[in-house]
Amino acid sequence: MNSMTTRRTVRSYSDRPVEDAMLQDLLNTAFRASNTGNMQVYSVVVTRDPDRKKLLAPMHFNQPQILQAPVVLTFCADLNRLTKWCRQNKANPGYDNIQSLTFAAIDTIIAAQAFCTAAEEEGLGICYLGTTTYNAEQIAEALKLPQLVIPITTITAGYPKEHDQSPLPDRLPLTGIVHDETYQDYTPDVIGQIYALKESLPESLSFIELNKKETLAQIYTDIRYTKDDNEHFSKTWIDAIRKQGFLK
Amino acid sequence: MNSMTTRRTVRSYSDRPVEDAMLQDLLNTAFRASNTGNMQVYSVVVTRDPDRKKLLAPMHFNQPQILQAPVVLTFCADLNRLTKWCRQNKANPGYDNIQSLTFAAIDTIIAAQAFCTAAEEEGLGICYLGTTTYNAEQIAEALKLPQLVIPITTITAGYPKEHDQSPLPDRLPLTGIVHDETYQDYTPDVIGQIYALKESLPESLSFIELNKKETLAQIYTDIRYTKDDNEHFSKTWIDAIRKQGFLK
Repeated sequence: MNSMTTRRTVRSYSDRPVEDAMLQDLLNTAFRASNTGNMQVYSVVVTRDPDRKKLLAPMHFNQPQILQAPVVLTFCADLNRLTKWCRQNKANPGYDNIQSLTFAAIDTIIAAQAFCTAAEEEGLGICYLGTTTYNAEQIAEALKLPQLVIPITTITAGYPKEHDQSPLPDRLPLTGIVHDETYQDYTPDVIGQIYALKESLPESLSFIELNKKETLAQIYTDIRYTKDDNEHFSKTWIDAIRKQGFLK
Repeated sequence: MNSMTTRRTVRSYSDRPVEDAMLQDLLNTAFRASNTGNMQVYSVVVTRDPDRKKLLAPMHFNQPQILQAPVVLTFCADLNRLTKWCRQNKANPGYDNIQSLTFAAIDTIIAAQAFCTAAEEEGLGICYLGTTTYNAEQIAEALKLPQLVIPITTITAGYPKEHDQSPLPDRLPLTGIVHDETYQDYTPDVIGQIYALKESLPESLSFIELNKKETLAQIYTDIRYTKDDNEHFSKTWIDAIRKQGFLK
């Protein structure tokens, strides 16, 4: 399980193809993961066609890995299959609501992450595209998702173009994330300690200088994950949830 | 990675303790997984105290594993820590919304699943408690979660009480879940094929007989995941989301 501790996100892939048989093995492994009531309320749409990657690319803000990766997987919460099965078996389904979407989305991410771990163990590199829930409605249209199916995350996968020797990205100290018995809320001092390493990294300092900011936190609030964007994409996400049939 | 293909959910644990050092290693491994913008917007509350397990148990409908497991981990989406860091660094955070909750929840589940895989590789058994989003508000109170922190899933972990030799649980065929390029919606015949194995299992037939039902689908719609429950727990979940500060 060494691959789990030394892994890194891979955004640049070699020409070596990802064979269908391997992809199927990895997905079969992924679907062994836990899921709610063994209902498996998810679907995966596999994109290899360059034209369809081009169609998807702007929905992911043209992150280059979507065109460059041999395979793009859109992991979707899927209550359509279960609902259809119920309807043709004299059963009255009630899965067009937020709690059903929530357990389906959780199961979808569990499967996606199990896929990533299995893929990395086989030498592949992966990248999550968090843009999936920003533009879910357009992605649903592009992939022809019916009612009660909604994209939750997208993973690009392929063999890494090169062996990256740079240090692994930083992580917050465990004490900043793990709480004993009850949540210990953070004092200003503790916040300072938790983020001290991140703030001191050369790339953080260079981001701040490059963007003419005062603090690293401003890089997040003013550039990368702004209030305006988060509020705008909250609206588009709720609209997509409504349009796909999970909210009246 | 054999553990990923042969894994099963473990609900009954031996007396062998899960040492703190091991738990910390597993969490450190889990937090190497991908996350949005390397913000790590999650927290984990570790419950070992028997009294606190008793407090949590009814919120998880008294599933016995919560009292029986040596360790219970509540994985929470956490925008509080990031928001506090921003506020004390002249940055204006905007993470009190549904899109921020969504990316935090996705990152929380990615970390939770990475924890489970790492734990199983070390010989531990785990069980997800999907009840977490049903009674999120009470769980938030029990664990003293502040605004912008909300529980997403709970994992019980420990060494398995016995070596289960029964066959692995069924899974739907890959062709029923994976779609080539675009979503291929299901015809009644295909639905029949996808669920044929599940419907034919001895335990399915015995569930149907025991509950005096006509079809396996009715076990899901009438007993396990009913429309009334799903709609009720959609309301409690949305209330919790609002109360924790993600929805106006």
